Amino acid sequence: DYAKIDTTRAQRTGYPEVIYGSGKSAKQIVGIVKAMKDSQKSILATRVEQSKADEVLKELPFLKYDAVSQTLTLKDKERVEVGNIAIVTAGTSDIKVAEEAAVTAEIFGNQVTRIYDVGVAGIHRLFAKLDVIRQANVVIVIAGMEGALTSVVGGLVDHPVIAVPTSIGYGSNLGGMTPLLTMLNSCSSGISVVNIDNGFGAAYNASMINRLISEEHI
Amino acid sequence: DYAKIDTTRAQRTGYPEVIYGSGKSAKQIVGIVKAMKDSQKSILATRVEQSKADEVLKELPFLKYDAVSQTLTLKDKERVEVGNIAIVTAGTSDIKVAEEAAVTAEIFGNQVTRIYDVGVAGIHRLFAKLDVIRQANVVIVIAGMEGALTSVVGGLVDHPVIAVPTSIGYGSNLGGMTPLLTMLNSCSSGISVVNIDNGFGAAYNASMINRLISEEHI
Amino acid sequence: DYAKIDTTRAQRTGYPEVIYGSGKSAKQIVGIVKAMKDSQKSILATRVEQSKADEVLKELPFLKYDAVSQTLTLKDKERVEVGNIAIVTAGTSDIKVAEEAAVTAEIFGNQVTRIYDVGVAGIHRLFAKLDVIRQANVVIVIAGMEGALTSVVGGLVDHPVIAVPTSIGYGSNLGGMTPLLTMLNSCSSGISVVNIDNGFGAAYNASMINRLISEEHI
Amino acid sequence: DYAKIDTTRAQRTGYPEVIYGSGKSAKQIVGIVKAMKDSQKSILATRVEQSKADEVLKELPFLKYDAVSQTLTLKDKERVEVGNIAIVTAGTSDIKVAEEAAVTAEIFGNQVTRIYDVGVAGIHRLFAKLDVIRQANVVIVIAGMEGALTSVVGGLVDHPVIAVPTSIGYGSNLGGMTPLLTMLNSCSSGISVVNIDNGFGAAYNASMINRLISEEHI
Amino acid sequence: DYAKIDTTRAQRTGYPEVIYGSGKSAKQIVGIVKAMKDSQKSILATRVEQSKADEVLKELPFLKYDAVSQTLTLKDKERVEVGNIAIVTAGTSDIKVAEEAAVTAEIFGNQVTRIYDVGVAGIHRLFAKLDVIRQANVVIVIAGMEGALTSVVGGLVDHPVIAVPTSIGYGSNLGGMTPLLTMLNSCSSGISVVNIDNGFGAAYNASMINRLISEEHI
Amino acid sequence: DYAKIDTTRAQRTGYPEVIYGSGKSAKQIVGIVKAMKDSQKSILATRVEQSKADEVLKELPFLKYDAVSQTLTLKDKERVEVGNIAIVTAGTSDIKVAEEAAVTAEIFGNQVTRIYDVGVAGIHRLFAKLDVIRQANVVIVIAGMEGALTSVVGGLVDHPVIAVPTSIGYGSNLGGMTPLLTMLNSCSSGISVVNIDNGFGAAYNASMINRLISEEHI
Amino acid sequence: DYAKIDTTRAQRTGYPEVIYGSGKSAKQIVGIVKAMKDSQKSILATRVEQSKADEVLKELPFLKYDAVSQTLTLKDKERVEVGNIAIVTAGTSDIKVAEEAAVTAEIFGNQVTRIYDVGVAGIHRLFAKLDVIRQANVVIVIAGMEGALTSVVGGLVDHPVIAVPTSIGYGSNLGGMTPLLTMLNSCSSGISVVNIDNGFGAAYNASMINRLISEEHI
Amino acid sequence: DYAKIDTTRAQRTGYPEVIYGSGKSAKQIVGIVKAMKDSQKSILATRVEQSKADEVLKELPFLKYDAVSQTLTLKDKERVEVGNIAIVTAGTSDIKVAEEAAVTAEIFGNQVTRIYDVGVAGIHRLFAKLDVIRQANVVIVIAGMEGALTSVVGGLVDHPVIAVPTSIGYGSNLGGMTPLLTMLNSCSSGISVVNIDNGFGAAYNASMINRLISEEHI
Ligand SMILES: Nc1ncnc2c1ncn2[C@@H]1O[C@H](COP(=O)(O)O)[C@@H](O)[C@H]1O
Ligand SMILES: Nc1ncnc2c1ncn2[C@@H]1O[C@H](COP(=O)(O)O)[C@@H](O)[C@H]1O
Ligand SMILES: Nc1ncnc2c1ncn2[C@@H]1O[C@H](COP(=O)(O)O)[C@@H](O)[C@H]1O
Ligand SMILES: Nc1ncnc2c1ncn2[C@@H]1O[C@H](COP(=O)(O)O)[C@@H](O)[C@H]1O
Ligand SMILES: [Mg+2]
Ligand SMILES: [Mg+2]
Ligand SMILES: [Mg+2]
Ligand SMILES: [Mg+2]
Ligand SMILES: [Mg+2]
Ligand SMILES: [Mg+2]
Ligand SMILES: [Mg+2]
Ligand SMILES: [Mg+2]
Repeated sequence: DYAKIDTTRAQRTGYPEVIYGSGKSAKQIVGIVKAMKDSQKSILATRVEQSKADEVLKELPFLKYDAVSQTLTLKDKERVEVGNIAIVTAGTSDIKVAEEAAVTAEIFGNQVTRIYDVGVAGIHRLFAKLDVIRQANVVIVIAGMEGALTSVVGGLVDHPVIAVPTSIGYGSNLGGMTPLLTMLNSCSSGISVVNIDNGFGAAYNASMINRLISEEHI
Repeated sequence: DYAKIDTTRAQRTGYPEVIYGSGKSAKQIVGIVKAMKDSQKSILATRVEQSKADEVLKELPFLKYDAVSQTLTLKDKERVEVGNIAIVTAGTSDIKVAEEAAVTAEIFGNQVTRIYDVGVAGIHRLFAKLDVIRQANVVIVIAGMEGALTSVVGGLVDHPVIAVPTSIGYGSNLGGMTPLLTMLNSCSSGISVVNIDNGFGAAYNASMINRLISEEHI
Repeated sequence: DYAKIDTTRAQRTGYPEVIYGSGKSAKQIVGIVKAMKDSQKSILATRVEQSKADEVLKELPFLKYDAVSQTLTLKDKERVEVGNIAIVTAGTSDIKVAEEAAVTAEIFGNQVTRIYDVGVAGIHRLFAKLDVIRQANVVIVIAGMEGALTSVVGGLVDHPVIAVPTSIGYGSNLGGMTPLLTMLNSCSSGISVVNIDNGFGAAYNASMINRLISEEHI
Repeated sequence: DYAKIDTTRAQRTGYPEVIYGSGKSAKQIVGIVKAMKDSQKSILATRVEQSKADEVLKELPFLKYDAVSQTLTLKDKERVEVGNIAIVTAGTSDIKVAEEAAVTAEIFGNQVTRIYDVGVAGIHRLFAKLDVIRQANVVIVIAGMEGALTSVVGGLVDHPVIAVPTSIGYGSNLGGMTPLLTMLNSCSSGISVVNIDNGFGAAYNASMINRLISEEHI
Repeated sequence: DYAKIDTTRAQRTGYPEVIYGSGKSAKQIVGIVKAMKDSQKSILATRVEQSKADEVLKELPFLKYDAVSQTLTLKDKERVEVGNIAIVTAGTSDIKVAEEAAVTAEIFGNQVTRIYDVGVAGIHRLFAKLDVIRQANVVIVIAGMEGALTSVVGGLVDHPVIAVPTSIGYGSNLGGMTPLLTMLNSCSSGISVVNIDNGFGAAYNASMINRLISEEHI
Repeated sequence: DYAKIDTTRAQRTGYPEVIYGSGKSAKQIVGIVKAMKDSQKSILATRVEQSKADEVLKELPFLKYDAVSQTLTLKDKERVEVGNIAIVTAGTSDIKVAEEAAVTAEIFGNQVTRIYDVGVAGIHRLFAKLDVIRQANVVIVIAGMEGALTSVVGGLVDHPVIAVPTSIGYGSNLGGMTPLLTMLNSCSSGISVVNIDNGFGAAYNASMINRLISEEHI
Repeated sequence: DYAKIDTTRAQRTGYPEVIYGSGKSAKQIVGIVKAMKDSQKSILATRVEQSKADEVLKELPFLKYDAVSQTLTLKDKERVEVGNIAIVTAGTSDIKVAEEAAVTAEIFGNQVTRIYDVGVAGIHRLFAKLDVIRQANVVIVIAGMEGALTSVVGGLVDHPVIAVPTSIGYGSNLGGMTPLLTMLNSCSSGISVVNIDNGFGAAYNASMINRLISEEHI
Repeated sequence: DYAKIDTTRAQRTGYPEVIYGSGKSAKQIVGIVKAMKDSQKSILATRVEQSKADEVLKELPFLKYDAVSQTLTLKDKERVEVGNIAIVTAGTSDIKVAEEAAVTAEIFGNQVTRIYDVGVAGIHRLFAKLDVIRQANVVIVIAGMEGALTSVVGGLVDHPVIAVPTSIGYGSNLGGMTPLLTMLNSCSSGISVVNIDNGFGAAYNASMINRLISEEHI
């Protein structure tokens, strides 16, 4: 009654509805998962903290919880993973958001390459990984503080870059508004941006693009 | 001397450098076009107002000026237009930005479908065009005021949506910050966002995606 | 002494004073309710959390507490419920605010129709309920994230729409400032806006309108 | 081609489409008016400055231009004016916005009562007009600077108040953001708010309410 | 070592240094009070929460703690209280800030008249107290939410008004920024403003003015 | 008709109404001055630019125009100037605002001492004038850029300081918001603040205080 | 009278007073230059537009005007230029600010190396100049849009970096607030920041550092 | 795996990588320290709260924890401390940030002079220390509230000033944004700014400058 599950979403948009766990009770999550299970082979709930996950897992032990990405998942074993999405972070603290993206991309059937902690304070770390990044169909760049890494990557690759600002930083970082603005005003082209800390949204976009490109290749 | 043209950009990122006309003199634009002409078959300058364009055209009559999109272009006649990018606007006033996107997409070798003035105040206008929009590989949604059209389109298509907020509006629209924030916080997935009025940037992203998808089809 | 109860408010504005519980102690609430009871048949306190409510109820067991809307109420049994106010939410998380509106509207003598979780990410859910919504004298639309639902509803009904932005969202949602700005800049007409999370205020306005319209009908 | 006129709007929302003149050329306005004339008996274009209006009037001499409200109108002579909307301003400089509201309300078939320059710096001016204001079905309060008048009126009337912040002021007025915030946070109930300088929007809402109330009375 | 007490402040500015308790440990406060006691007859520490105060009182039992204003004081019994400062609040929740002002004013030797909960939602409550307010040499007006009370008082008295915005409110109140902006943009003259919740600062200013006026009268 | 002159203002607040010229036509100003002349001996209009003033002076040659302060005045020759208000500016560019304050203070019957261009970049300039400043009953400090002068003066005088931020500056000065915030957060006590560039408002407050103090002395 | 020239500034801070031309009349600039000429061998006026400069030059033909940097200068021929300051810009449009910095640095006796248009969209342009940049004692990095260049340079050099955000950009660039925030939140260390477009301030800081380092070397 | 330590940073930028403790687990800090120990003689971790430090110290007892600055350090005993950096604070509450700066400067081999609590509310406290401050090669000024101290110091010294705004304050202090803006807009020259509360960053810059100046002196 509290939720109208959108059962035709996969049909309309290519992907089934995903549960945004923040602000939902364990009970509500359990209810929604049960209702979804009939029509979906894979299930994803994001923003589920440890204690809430524990409660859910008691009722639904077939789900898998990952504490870094704060996700609950049920994977469709038959889904073939295609293409390649690179997920690049500037720092160590951005990894939480990166893993939300990675888990989302994997559940949606994408191959993922992780390249973490290669921020521009030591730009040689990025150059050491450039070949790997260039092989991906889509690149997700995740950065807090000032988010400059996005513009550097954008100037070096010829595939779409999806930028995720994170709330890592303090003072005039303004809870991630600073890297968000940085990314929107990038002097490099080929970059589009999603909300602060929205690893899920970046992976969703990347998956759409990666699968469209890969369809012909598999 | 005032500009270091990035002659290897096409190689690195897939597209040659584009001239951002705002704040450059006619003389500077002429100089840069001349320098580019050796290594590039197509040329694009954006944000060139009528009077500045007139001056440039005296020196470089082979360029074409379009007053709505405020672009100067030289088209590579041999480039094959592939795939299909839909450009959708909420209102009539958003057309300037839409045409900047359209001209950019066309110069980069994409087929473009224009669907203008289908904002949510009369949402049946959008539904009447949904089939056409769904056939595109990528959808660019351009909207000012509150930018709600993006979320509606995002919930109805299964291809990537690139959102462009425009500065159309007044008062608490804050020069386009309102639709920008709307688009970044969309409840629909599959949407990524570029800067306010950045038709060029949206087309650049869309072109990257469209051409990658289309490569196998042509 | 700490509060000057406005005993002529019902006379001046049509409705008695309501207790805004936030920042008041249980003791203060008890004191105010006692003072009000002489001149008012119905009583409403909003923003009262569970623990504070428990304390108040020990002293005033005739009040009813509702944990979702966080309200304490005493209902005037003789008041006839008139007309019809539709309360529409975009998501599940907006229900708290919706119930603050619903309880307020009911205590003020209005019939309420609840339509929850019909956000534009799955717009068919809204269309399925459009007939019901159109029958209402006034429509309250409650949405967080980007608040786009308001504009869509505004373009489809011919009765006044009162919009309530909620603080549901994260990052550039800015604690509800984003849907607030969305709603103020709506391209649809017939929409007016109240403060973030202000379910009470929306219901108050809607009640004024609904009762004025209904007066002739009952 | 640049505009899809929403011909079923009157049917859906009770009022025909209105032309928002800002950013449209005289030519475009003429085109839209001609297209509208077949299906509508009354026409309203707002935000049309003198010089643009002169051009339009050459082509369409049956329209009437009003320089204070910056409107072009064609009035449906047969429409009966009903009910009563009070339009109240704080200062002299707010009158432009007030007249946009007044003209809109009149074209939509409402009786209008104007009460101008009764701001709280001299609050006795308001009290002198209170009886007149209280007779209206709906009250529009228009104020710039700090917008305090709204809260005072809201505490004194028992009919809905629609508040319009104006951009009159300087410095930390922030182009009208200050009275907008004032109005959204009013300690009086029964107030809802539209965008800065949006006289049209306020009148549209007020008209909806006034006509619903008046239907039984005429 | 952590604090250089400004022992000549009373001489330069008329009042001794006051301890701003927020962010200081009980130990630091004790140390500063001890150092001050040699050169000052009265002592005032603001923003001291209950638990910190308890610790301080163990060491310095001659101080008096007031939990509403969160102040620790030592009063100079010989100081004559002069003149009259009116402290007016809009709501009940503003009383904390009002008491910080009242205690400060009293320790500085002023007579204080408290008029609480007379906000504009029920403006007759203010008019009932107008005579008392007009007798004061200076009026401090304290209000949260939208802060409109300040403008009304400013238009009715012929003595200086010092306005204190409070952080009471939610959503677009922005932690008190809204009433701050309201007060700075008041259409009434004779109003000056201090920081959000700064009851101390308002009383300090009022005291300066009141004592200068009163000097001749006592 | 466009203006309700507040003829009892002097009685209520001690000073007659002042004409805020910005946004009023020469014609409107002429009309208001004529209406005022019956009940007022002195007249003040602020924010009147040269060309508008010229038009007004043709009709009302008895007024005096001052181009620096942008004021039109008629002085009550019989009014005795009392006390002493010091007007201090940080820079040369702040003088426009300072003169609006000075002219206002003089028309209201105050003696004014001008101390200009003594900003903290060369703080010895302030110390050279400190004796003069300390003799004033009230000090108005006017500063743009970062507004630091206010805090320094506030720490050195024992009379009230009224701070006026100006819009002088660029970039992150944000049109005067930066010195406004500086002044509101001053670590010195005894400072209250008016709106950006509001020389009139500062003088109004200062005049109230100065005259109250001076009453006994003359 | 309108300006108190700070004749001991060179003594106190190492550099004489500089004229900030914005908002000063040609006449005022002439007056100040004349007063300065007695005590200073070099003179610098910034922010002087062409037409104002022309007027000044008529009176003071010994000054030199530079239209790009908008400066008027008189150079102390005997001053020895020492050390080396690198001035690096991201784009062509940042050159105006860069030249304000360069002219300032030169008049203060520093050697300047200009490296323009090496933004991160084509980062190889920066690497090609890295040796030259590393030889400087101080590096000034000037960038608009998103300002990412600063972080990259900061991670590659072992001398202090002074960052200047510029107002080049549009939309969510917010008049340079975006690169300002970027630079303040840089993940690279060794960067400090001055106001938007403040080429002068950056050069002033750089000069202080460069001359201190160079003193031993010359 | 979660961190790519930048082992060539000392070579590139003069200083080894520093651990930013905020958001890292004790375990992660231990891991990074161990990895660093091979290539670095001194180690610095900032933003480590007491409880986290205790855990780290169990594993790495050779580190030293300082609770005021919240740093963990290992000092290179052989490093010679050179030159002189003055660290000046406005208030007592700014000392935390000052000590982060002091510890950083010391670990980087600089002599440090501490001058605390000399804010402009009692400016004589600053003048009493001016000689000491003037002897330093670089001055770090740390201030919250309105940050005015920076401008005063900047006008009195002839060496570079690095300004650190702190988040000390309340209301319109906006978490330190106010002193940040103050410092960026200073009317004094020779000031550059780092992020709010960034004591580390200020010391890093100061150290670079101090050591470059001192190299010739030791
Ligand atoms: N981490 C996330 N960030 C943003 N959106 C999400 C996230 N996880 C899920 N969603 C979206 O939120 C929708 C569910 O919202 P709700 O109806 O409130 O449960 C899903 O269909 C997703 O599109
Ligand atoms: N509640 C308050 N709000 C603002 N300023 C205060 C307050 N209480 C004390 N002060 C000021 O803060 C100064 C002390 O600051 P500190 O040196 O940090 O203790 C006092 O001299 C007062 O001027
Ligand atoms: N320069 C000024 N800045 C702020 N308020 C002013 C100024 N000049 C006049 N006023 C105020 O504006 C009121 C007139 O407003 P209005 O009714 O719009 O003419 C006067 O009574 C004054 O209180
Ligand atoms: N307190 C601090 N504030 C800002 N930056 C810091 C601070 N402490 C360390 N850093 C920087 O943060 C870098 C480490 O970031 P991370 O890779 O996330 O550990 C260091 O190399 C420093 O440049
Ligand atoms: Mg790292
Ligand atoms: Mg349209
Ligand atoms: Mg849902
Ligand atoms: Mg008026
Ligand atoms: Mg109350
Ligand atoms: Mg000066
Ligand atoms: Mg370039
Ligand atoms: Mg202190």
